[in-house]
Amino acid sequence: MDKIRLYEVFEKGFTDLKSMEPVKFEATFTNGTDKYTVNLFADGANRYLVRFLPQKTGQWDYSIDLDGNVVKGSFLCEGRDSNNHGLVKAIGDRFQYEDGTRYLPFGTTCYAWTHQTEELQQQTIDTLKASPYNKIRMCVFPKSMPYNENEPELFPFHKKEDGAWDVNQPNADFWHHLENRISQLGQLGIEADLILFHPYDRWGFSKFTHEEDLIYLKYCITRLSAFHNIWWSLANEFDFVPGKLFEEWDDFGNMVLAVDPYRHLTSIHNGFVVYPKKPWMTHCSIQGDAQKTITWKNKYDMPVLIDECGYEGDIEYSWGNLSAFEMVNRVWTAVTRGGYCTHGETYHRDDEVLWWAKGGLLYGESSERIAFLRKLLESIPENLQLVQKHLFNINPNDHKDSSNINTDNPIIKSLFSLPEHERDAHLLNFMPNMISSASYRLHYLGRQRPSIMDYTVPENGKYQIEVIDVWEMSRTLLHDEVAGNIKLRLPGKEGIAILVTRLEGDSLVD
Amino acid sequence: MDKIRLYEVFEKGFTDLKSMEPVKFEATFTNGTDKYTVNLFADGANRYLVRFLPQKTGQWDYSIDLDGNVVKGSFLCEGRDSNNHGLVKAIGDRFQYEDGTRYLPFGTTCYAWTHQTEELQQQTIDTLKASPYNKIRMCVFPKSMPYNENEPELFPFHKKEDGAWDVNQPNADFWHHLENRISQLGQLGIEADLILFHPYDRWGFSKFTHEEDLIYLKYCITRLSAFHNIWWSLANEFDFVPGKLFEEWDDFGNMVLAVDPYRHLTSIHNGFVVYPKKPWMTHCSIQGDAQKTITWKNKYDMPVLIDECGYEGDIEYSWGNLSAFEMVNRVWTAVTRGGYCTHGETYHRDDEVLWWAKGGLLYGESSERIAFLRKLLESIPENLQLVQKHLFNINPNDHKDSSNINTDNPIIKSLFSLPEHERDAHLLNFMPNMISSASYRLHYLGRQRPSIMDYTVPENGKYQIEVIDVWEMSRTLLHDEVAGNIKLRLPGKEGIAILVTRLEGDSLVD
Repeated sequence: MDKIRLYEVFEKGFTDLKSMEPVKFEATFTNGTDKYTVNLFADGANRYLVRFLPQKTGQWDYSIDLDGNVVKGSFLCEGRDSNNHGLVKAIGDRFQYEDGTRYLPFGTTCYAWTHQTEELQQQTIDTLKASPYNKIRMCVFPKSMPYNENEPELFPFHKKEDGAWDVNQPNADFWHHLENRISQLGQLGIEADLILFHPYDRWGFSKFTHEEDLIYLKYCITRLSAFHNIWWSLANEFDFVPGKLFEEWDDFGNMVLAVDPYRHLTSIHNGFVVYPKKPWMTHCSIQGDAQKTITWKNKYDMPVLIDECGYEGDIEYSWGNLSAFEMVNRVWTAVTRGGYCTHGETYHRDDEVLWWAKGGLLYGESSERIAFLRKLLESIPENLQLVQKHLFNINPNDHKDSSNINTDNPIIKSLFSLPEHERDAHLLNFMPNMISSASYRLHYLGRQRPSIMDYTVPENGKYQIEVIDVWEMSRTLLHDEVAGNIKLRLPGKEGIAILVTRLEGDSLVD
Repeated sequence: MDKIRLYEVFEKGFTDLKSMEPVKFEATFTNGTDKYTVNLFADGANRYLVRFLPQKTGQWDYSIDLDGNVVKGSFLCEGRDSNNHGLVKAIGDRFQYEDGTRYLPFGTTCYAWTHQTEELQQQTIDTLKASPYNKIRMCVFPKSMPYNENEPELFPFHKKEDGAWDVNQPNADFWHHLENRISQLGQLGIEADLILFHPYDRWGFSKFTHEEDLIYLKYCITRLSAFHNIWWSLANEFDFVPGKLFEEWDDFGNMVLAVDPYRHLTSIHNGFVVYPKKPWMTHCSIQGDAQKTITWKNKYDMPVLIDECGYEGDIEYSWGNLSAFEMVNRVWTAVTRGGYCTHGETYHRDDEVLWWAKGGLLYGESSERIAFLRKLLESIPENLQLVQKHLFNINPNDHKDSSNINTDNPIIKSLFSLPEHERDAHLLNFMPNMISSASYRLHYLGRQRPSIMDYTVPENGKYQIEVIDVWEMSRTLLHDEVAGNIKLRLPGKEGIAILVTRLEGDSLVD
């Protein structure tokens, strides 16, 4: 009997099947009470493949119906490879792998890396291997915009006689190539946050009819769902894609839901307008201010990834010339506001090989610091939750109602007389960047740089206080055993965090 | 005949006048068709003073009516002292002195400096003398808050028998002292932006009845109006002063208008809520984001001073721990968005002498850079006006109407589908920090740090391009003679400005 490992792709091919449909035929996979039905998909002329991702060990029996010709068989699914923890799932506002291991997303962005030369792609893989990144935002379609003028070698479809793309004729070479890259990422423990549509197009992929979009999507999802490390990102900047209606994106999300039997993580990324919460959505993939992580968390009640907040670099565009410190600052801000934040790099090069689009090498200074943060979080055995409190002692979950606040205080009175969006912006500003568990509290001061600070830990217990310099990547013990109200002496510079560890006594969370 | 110089205080005192009213009796001053009527004010027991600020040379005749006993006389007003340019006036969105000299406000903040020891006040004066600051925000009343626990020596009023302040009994020693300081500032060319009310009070000055407030105000304005370098700031953070109604502030403004015959610059400074435009207001004195200088400029059609945007320092409070770079960045941002921005400094000291409240010494690194900016602006002989344009080619003065924009562009469509406040925030972000005249353009890149940039100057002419490093305080010639579209190679760091100078040809303003 065939054997495969848990969370790895089972694949079977059939030739001489005369059909012109990209997705056709059906297969069922059964293991005890677990039963999955998937479609086959075209893989070149007259050839179809079926793929399946087992998420349970033991014997799987399959039955493949090729228009009446039923092929039956079995394979044995053995324990997982130690590097493969299975699909990432959203649990509350955090992520974990299928096997229960915690997953802390530290993503980067290389939109069109699979559309570059073989040599450059290999360099990207090598760079990723040495990087802190365990998620990558990447597009199915090639990218057209400044620094992206080169033609890709492969396209996802063949063309019709009139020169238009034929979504009914997928280009097997393109998809094999993409799959190889997704597999390589999987082996490196990197999630492929695959962008299904985007606006930066000169070939016509963003201008399919709605019917063509759905044919493409059904094919893509049928074909790639069996990769454990796939995430579906419906779009990069959905609202910037010309001509698509708001409702079409909902159709796309529902298509993912209908076709992907494993429920891979699914999101839609915005330009200006954040897409409303939908049943197919598993998390927020936001373009915007890292400070607003809390806003999205409260609004969507899902994990929040700030998937675009600007990139470390020095190109002309405002989104691509953050200092390394500011990139690090935004990642820390999102993380200590209960979310995550995705890296990107755009240093001008005359050869136009910029990491954010093409991959290659990283030249910046933020990745090393992001690695430091990742290690720090991984060294903390508990998931840290956002601490929602602020200066004015207003219930942050109920600040539309002013009845619970002290309105004798003229500052609060003034605040509550502001238009709602202005008030909320102030309240957001006044909330600390603080995440905590019973035994650990991580408090990031951002660009604030006090040299002295009144600080409170519980009265009843012993707590250790460390000062973290996010740029120097240092941890310095400030107090080895304190309790109650203390006065901290801090470095008085930007990019300082305070890590409190409970040695004994009361929980750090109220 | 008495002689005084233009813009200097004419003063005459009368004793043995039995009255309990702080402001009483009337005087008229006449010079040709110019006629001013002012009140006298109590200056200790049975003593009254009249003051007058001549703004025209030649002979002034006065007539002072002391309840029927009319005192007449004359004095000769000679040409101004070379250091005294007279009152500052708002002209459009800029300022100039009475004598026509341009005034570029570079302010600082020492709220309670006149309430400190004699020695410390002298040190403040010495520090100001060596500083770039030509305006200072300072309070009539003493200040109570962290770092402000010491008791002042003098108070503006005597107390009643029950221990409450008696606004009808001004303390002449207090006012003489304050006036001496205002005079000293005047001699240094520094405008005294005098704060009439503020919330940080433990003595009861913020808790007068409305009637008491008006008695105090009438006295203060009558007494101090004749100083050429007085500005009236109705409040620091008016909306944080407990118990005062919104309309009371309008009464205060109208009182200024009624009592001050010279129309000194008058503003009201906010905490959260910016006060609406009123006839007594000559300019905006904003607490808020320097980026919004444009917003206030367009809304108020007046000069905009960001009088509080945080302070360089390292204290615990978010408003008092900006880096020196960020302080400089905010000043540059406000200036290149068509306004001005006020400095302050709050470095923690165990002796609690922080510049922002008490004066003393400056320890920070921003003042030197603000001096550099002041010199740079003064070296440009023309007033530079805000260039209101942005990336999307939307008419910034009419962006509520989307009919004038290209709505085929999905990015603009998305932008215009946002709630108004979100759209406006994006539009504000996309506007450059750029001020220009026909011959000079100053373009500040803020925290953006391109190393390469497509740049446009008019086709028809010759233009010089300099790169300014706002932190290093350097001006570097980049191109000595260019025209049309050029590619700039820039340092790729934060805090860079571009100064374009027309050598010949078309105006830099469309």
